[in-house]
Amino acid sequence: MSIRIGILGYGNLGRGVECAVKANDDLELVAVFTRRDPALLSIKTPGVPVVNVSDVEEWEDKIDVMILCGGSATDLPVQTPHYAKMFNVVDSFDTHARIPEHFANVDKAAKENGHVGIISVGWDPGLFSLARVYSNAILPNGKDYTFWGRGVSQGHSDAIRRIEGVADARQYTVPVEKALAAVRAGENPELSTREKHTRECYVVLEDGADAAKVEQEIKTMPNYFADYDTTVHFISQEELDKNHKGLPHGGSVIRSGVTGHDGENKHVIEFKLDLDSNPEFTTSVLVCYARAAYRLAKEGVTGCKTVLDIAPSYLSAQSDEELRAHLL
Amino acid sequence: MSIRIGILGYGNLGRGVECAVKANDDLELVAVFTRRDPALLSIKTPGVPVVNVSDVEEWEDKIDVMILCGGSATDLPVQTPHYAKMFNVVDSFDTHARIPEHFANVDKAAKENGHVGIISVGWDPGLFSLARVYSNAILPNGKDYTFWGRGVSQGHSDAIRRIEGVADARQYTVPVEKALAAVRAGENPELSTREKHTRECYVVLEDGADAAKVEQEIKTMPNYFADYDTTVHFISQEELDKNHKGLPHGGSVIRSGVTGHDGENKHVIEFKLDLDSNPEFTTSVLVCYARAAYRLAKEGVTGCKTVLDIAPSYLSAQSDEELRAHLL
Repeated sequence: MSIRIGILGYGNLGRGVECAVKANDDLELVAVFTRRDPALLSIKTPGVPVVNVSDVEEWEDKIDVMILCGGSATDLPVQTPHYAKMFNVVDSFDTHARIPEHFANVDKAAKENGHVGIISVGWDPGLFSLARVYSNAILPNGKDYTFWGRGVSQGHSDAIRRIEGVADARQYTVPVEKALAAVRAGENPELSTREKHTRECYVVLEDGADAAKVEQEIKTMPNYFADYDTTVHFISQEELDKNHKGLPHGGSVIRSGVTGHDGENKHVIEFKLDLDSNPEFTTSVLVCYARAAYRLAKEGVTGCKTVLDIAPSYLSAQSDEELRAHLL
Repeated sequence: MSIRIGILGYGNLGRGVECAVKANDDLELVAVFTRRDPALLSIKTPGVPVVNVSDVEEWEDKIDVMILCGGSATDLPVQTPHYAKMFNVVDSFDTHARIPEHFANVDKAAKENGHVGIISVGWDPGLFSLARVYSNAILPNGKDYTFWGRGVSQGHSDAIRRIEGVADARQYTVPVEKALAAVRAGENPELSTREKHTRECYVVLEDGADAAKVEQEIKTMPNYFADYDTTVHFISQEELDKNHKGLPHGGSVIRSGVTGHDGENKHVIEFKLDLDSNPEFTTSVLVCYARAAYRLAKEGVTGCKTVLDIAPSYLSAQSDEELRAHLL
């Protein structure tokens, strides 16, 4: 019998989960829940109902794990504790600073109602967190580096789009190759924000907008761009649609450390991702943790978990015996 | 209170564990066990007794986790099940094909005596296994690649040393850069053994040995060298001692896969190690799993485990709250 998956929210993430479920034989999509009018939503999987979220309680016994595909700013802080009362849930909450608070809220709701809630699943937080925890434990004497990109930052793209005179924009975060090379060589450099990443912006102007003024406004924007070497390219909407519609991303978590009685031996651990589609990869991770949530719940576990609390074997559709024989 | 660690076997691995224990404040080395005459063994940690292995039973209540530092060929298949009767144990058993059998033996002994035994800990098997399991679960439609090196293969070095006329030797396994680049680019190449790695040999001849004959014997040795492009450099013992005494190693586990309704998006996950000292890095991993063994045993868990069965947080000296706040 398949694990019955529900999707709540049908944006980039929801569509990604739909696709990832299809790629895993032991998972089955049973319903998509939306705040919109279900009649207006057309999904890709034939025969799967689209349901208004107001009717979600009727599905309590029909769904093993609900994957919450809302945003971290306002949706998930409310949704995850709420739906953890009804379902085992998985989310991709990615506001690092608010994780302890979100954990506590989800833990309480999940425990009181006998469910499992797995939060902050994806690649950062998620796989990058795993890389940090494993490598910090193994090399206690060392230094951590995280590089992002080359990839589209949706937050930075949005920030550009909010500027007056901008019709559309895409921003790429790009790691500085020289910095990456020094870190990979175990040189343990001290790197400023500017030395680690550059920012590349592709901007479509509205008719009559002042390019110089827009460029100046981008480059001096505090937090987003002022601390970086930023380049701005003005292009047509056609060119943006043709060359910059994808959502590639990736990056590297690197820990460089030493062992030996005098710290004489250097070691570098790197975990690297190169992704054509950020949402499709993120949701490929989400469905693995949905599988884990289902198994943990079956074992009687309740409460909130993160990727750090879950043994790797829970993610795989293969049995422990198969994993030991073929992948260990 | 510290976790009390015992070391059984004081070769490269045993010395590495001693060093790794020192790097972790929550671990304490309490004794080193040897098959040799303890009086002849001088260890680096002041005040720690060296004990003949025949007296090991007296230490049953004084050691929380025994780290077994024997070899996989003949020592560990016997030692790990044997010592799992007396202690929580961790080993680095690395004969992939015999893992299921070793697991069963250790599981039985550990369960019958209320202990935890963690086997096949290190980087391959170990961290590379984790990389394979995580990335296979996340990208079910994909292809695995493992590259080793540049690093010293002790098995291949030994094989050369067994040839008549050879006084000493070091063999480096070297990944082929072109193959690595193609895999990293997501090209999913089919690679023969020869296309993935080359073998570099540094050989010291005995007086009067026939260099051409030795070179021919190396290059045609079945399994070890015949399927590879092998280069042989004849050097002096002085040069070998000066430039080739270290035990560097490393490598990459790469999974390349696709997502999307038509498999249109490519993703590459890479886990990469670059290590100055293979034994010191291996033992840095071993002590993390000794910490995990101690914690699992305290929770009442018994039986054999592998890295695939253990949640990442068990490896870290930090609390779950600290990990969530700082590394997630």
